Amino acid sequence: MSEKLNQLKEIMGEISDLNSAASLLGWDQQTYMPAGGNEARGQQLATLAKISHQKATSQEVGKLLEELKQEFAGADPSSDEAAMIRVAARDYDKAVRVPSEFVAKQAIITTKAFEAWVEAKSKSDFSIFRPHLEKVLELVKEYISFFPPADHPYDTLLDDYEPGMKTADVQAIFNGLRPKQVELIKAIAARKQVEDKFLHKKYNEEKVWSFAAEITKQFGYDWTRGRMDKAPHPFETSFSVNDVRITNRFEPGNPLATVFSAMHEAGHAMYEQGINPAYERTALIHGTSLAVHESQSRMWENLVGRSLPFWEFFYPKLKKVFASQLDGVSLKSFYKAINKVEPSLIRVNADEATYNLHIMLRLELEIAMVEGKIAIKDLPEIWNAKMKEYLGITPPNDAQGVLQDIHWSYGSIGYFSTYALGNLVSAQLWEKINQDIKGLDDQIRKGKFDTLLGWLRENVHKHGRKYNPQDLVQKVTGSKITPEPYIRYLTTKYSDIYGL
Amino acid sequence: MSEKLNQLKEIMGEISDLNSAASLLGWDQQTYMPAGGNEARGQQLATLAKISHQKATSQEVGKLLEELKQEFAGADPSSDEAAMIRVAARDYDKAVRVPSEFVAKQAIITTKAFEAWVEAKSKSDFSIFRPHLEKVLELVKEYISFFPPADHPYDTLLDDYEPGMKTADVQAIFNGLRPKQVELIKAIAARKQVEDKFLHKKYNEEKVWSFAAEITKQFGYDWTRGRMDKAPHPFETSFSVNDVRITNRFEPGNPLATVFSAMHEAGHAMYEQGINPAYERTALIHGTSLAVHESQSRMWENLVGRSLPFWEFFYPKLKKVFASQLDGVSLKSFYKAINKVEPSLIRVNADEATYNLHIMLRLELEIAMVEGKIAIKDLPEIWNAKMKEYLGITPPNDAQGVLQDIHWSYGSIGYFSTYALGNLVSAQLWEKINQDIKGLDDQIRKGKFDTLLGWLRENVHKHGRKYNPQDLVQKVTGSKITPEPYIRYLTTKYSDIYGL
Repeated sequence: MSEKLNQLKEIMGEISDLNSAASLLGWDQQTYMPAGGNEARGQQLATLAKISHQKATSQEVGKLLEELKQEFAGADPSSDEAAMIRVAARDYDKAVRVPSEFVAKQAIITTKAFEAWVEAKSKSDFSIFRPHLEKVLELVKEYISFFPPADHPYDTLLDDYEPGMKTADVQAIFNGLRPKQVELIKAIAARKQVEDKFLHKKYNEEKVWSFAAEITKQFGYDWTRGRMDKAPHPFETSFSVNDVRITNRFEPGNPLATVFSAMHEAGHAMYEQGINPAYERTALIHGTSLAVHESQSRMWENLVGRSLPFWEFFYPKLKKVFASQLDGVSLKSFYKAINKVEPSLIRVNADEATYNLHIMLRLELEIAMVEGKIAIKDLPEIWNAKMKEYLGITPPNDAQGVLQDIHWSYGSIGYFSTYALGNLVSAQLWEKINQDIKGLDDQIRKGKFDTLLGWLRENVHKHGRKYNPQDLVQKVTGSKITPEPYIRYLTTKYSDIYGL
Repeated sequence: MSEKLNQLKEIMGEISDLNSAASLLGWDQQTYMPAGGNEARGQQLATLAKISHQKATSQEVGKLLEELKQEFAGADPSSDEAAMIRVAARDYDKAVRVPSEFVAKQAIITTKAFEAWVEAKSKSDFSIFRPHLEKVLELVKEYISFFPPADHPYDTLLDDYEPGMKTADVQAIFNGLRPKQVELIKAIAARKQVEDKFLHKKYNEEKVWSFAAEITKQFGYDWTRGRMDKAPHPFETSFSVNDVRITNRFEPGNPLATVFSAMHEAGHAMYEQGINPAYERTALIHGTSLAVHESQSRMWENLVGRSLPFWEFFYPKLKKVFASQLDGVSLKSFYKAINKVEPSLIRVNADEATYNLHIMLRLELEIAMVEGKIAIKDLPEIWNAKMKEYLGITPPNDAQGVLQDIHWSYGSIGYFSTYALGNLVSAQLWEKINQDIKGLDDQIRKGKFDTLLGWLRENVHKHGRKYNPQDLVQKVTGSKITPEPYIRYLTTKYSDIYGL
């Protein structure tokens, strides 16, 4: 083993340890931290981030990487060593471009913007958030300026979440998708709506929680290397491939959402648990991109968890626990109810058929903001017009419109499209999986998920950040990210449910 | 404000953040971490410790401290600034003496010694632990060699836990205490034993837990800045004056131990919550020594929590929750039962009258080990002989004898005496408190603890590490640590309970 590579791994290990520590501090902040701890926690996180950034951008790392690039110039690019150096170098090149004064300024502006957003949303008053979002947009433009000119300025933002992905790629994909989805929603709207009142009855929280936990275990989420705790929002976070945790919540008005959130977060968690342990404490740890990550969570939540075969196995169990709530509700009625399509205002509550349209709307606005083609002050009006155009509904206020998402307040412009891309990738992988695994539906019907999880481990999980998302999808499915499989999936599913 | 002091505070703040992060990682390891996370957690903690140590021993800190000592040479030594510089300089002087290779070697040896101790204890076989303890003793002697010669080599070890305290001081204190305690125990042994069977009935865990929690709230432990979680052993840990947590456990065979552990840990926690918030992220944060810390935990657990006035208020409440278990048990009988004296083998289960003798035994052995006057191989025999001499009982095996405590396995030689000193300080403070607060018993009888907590905040807590323990005790009570108040306290209490 190369002496220099060992040196690099030593430093990468320390950076990884610092980042894992910060992640645990973040997890604690959302789960158990008493309210009083908030201010000190902010300082602790800032210090960890600062030291981690100092190490990641040190001259020592830069020099090592230069030398290693030469040393491994002839190595197989798909070897672990070459990948480790390539990804570490990419992270380094990005990190050194951003001056630490900018990072400090960004922290201050986004902290204030977040506070303003909370207030603006609670009062449903965009004008409170507007000056802060203007500053955030200036920040984002300044950030872009640190990088070499790309085909489109938005490319620089997107690349942080989807390495190698271009704005034009995403636009092309979405342009193929949009008309089909709009058409599908219209067709569904013309049909009789399905009944789902029984989903909104009173369900016992503890019983829902343990039903959800059991499903994640059956999926293959390893609880000796994970756990599920209560938090205001469901999320997944990891501190090692052997310590990957999820959180969940219970909403009395939507009790079974806890079950689907558990499947979703377990999908993320199984990805992280399945990464090659040899990548621990290197630049290759964690999933390769947000879209590929989302493909895993959405696959377990939707392709598996909202499928008929799945509930053929689990519905009798659910009915045993909630006999009175589900009295007289057939499997098919339950299946239809959990797949009800209804254009709605809030992205996070959207069904599979309408979800991507919420994303497309946001992507268009973000690109236009970065291009300077729309002014922040006009956002609410444009938002509402697009909602009307895509989904046929108009938000009654900004809280349920342009103010609903947290992302912009902390400067995350470029993030949203990964949600929709994740949906597409999930269906694209699913078609390939069903070619490779004969009788998968039958396995699912028996509550068996090990062949599926094994396939995902082998083809997706174990690689960590070794391959860029588009390359990984190409390698596994034979083509780059494409909307067709998702359109086929939606059309088949809803034709059955709504009798299209 | 001095420019250089600001620079020092900046660095101290970062060191404090790193240490707080490490403490949270340690808390998580004991409370929620899934088993799989252990190995990665060890690496994360090692990295945080390494970076913290690098910062704490940097030339920059050394230079700043030298300059600040000159700049503040004429300042009031009791000013916050002077104290901050003094304590930071003490920490620095200690840290730079210990080479980092030694720290690395120590980590390896004590990790192995800990594993050997776990095995030795489970098999009750001292020979498994013996070679490791020999290495630990060599480490300890090497550690001592890094420091200037003291009156006694053990002074160097003691100073890490009780700054400024000398071995001779502790020996003098214990020599005054030992005959009185032995005499008291003999007198008690001649009396009729109290009845406590009702303490060992079946109690509902959840109810015990919430009763314990309620008591800590009534004491004044602030749950908006703290919480109580389950862990294998009760402990207190803090990440800020505004985030001070305790842990607890439930042992079915000794159900009410949970209540007393909660009082004990809340005593530690209220100390940390009461430190001047201006000391946050400086060298003055945390309690001044282990003995003073223990004086706080033992005061709330014993002086308050095992007193008759306390249970005059709480016993009717306890009886309401555990009506069947305590049926026919009078307040006085309950009070006697929770104060039962009985020489026993295990330190952590010892009552107030016998506890200090367990400590004295350990101190004598440690000093003799450091002096080279006893060989490790003879420890079990000497241990058993001393148990016979002090407590009149002989351990049937090493697990219940010389192997019972974890401390030596991780190299903590010098620690034990602080437990006994804490008991003494608690009684010494208590006499002063009862001079200052008239009718304190009556307040306690009404469940009022705010005057008491206010006194402790003002006289002890707020100072953090500003004063050395002996100086603090002197300042508050008019004399250095002395055994007389504790002897008076025990004699009065047990004369009543056992009719001496």
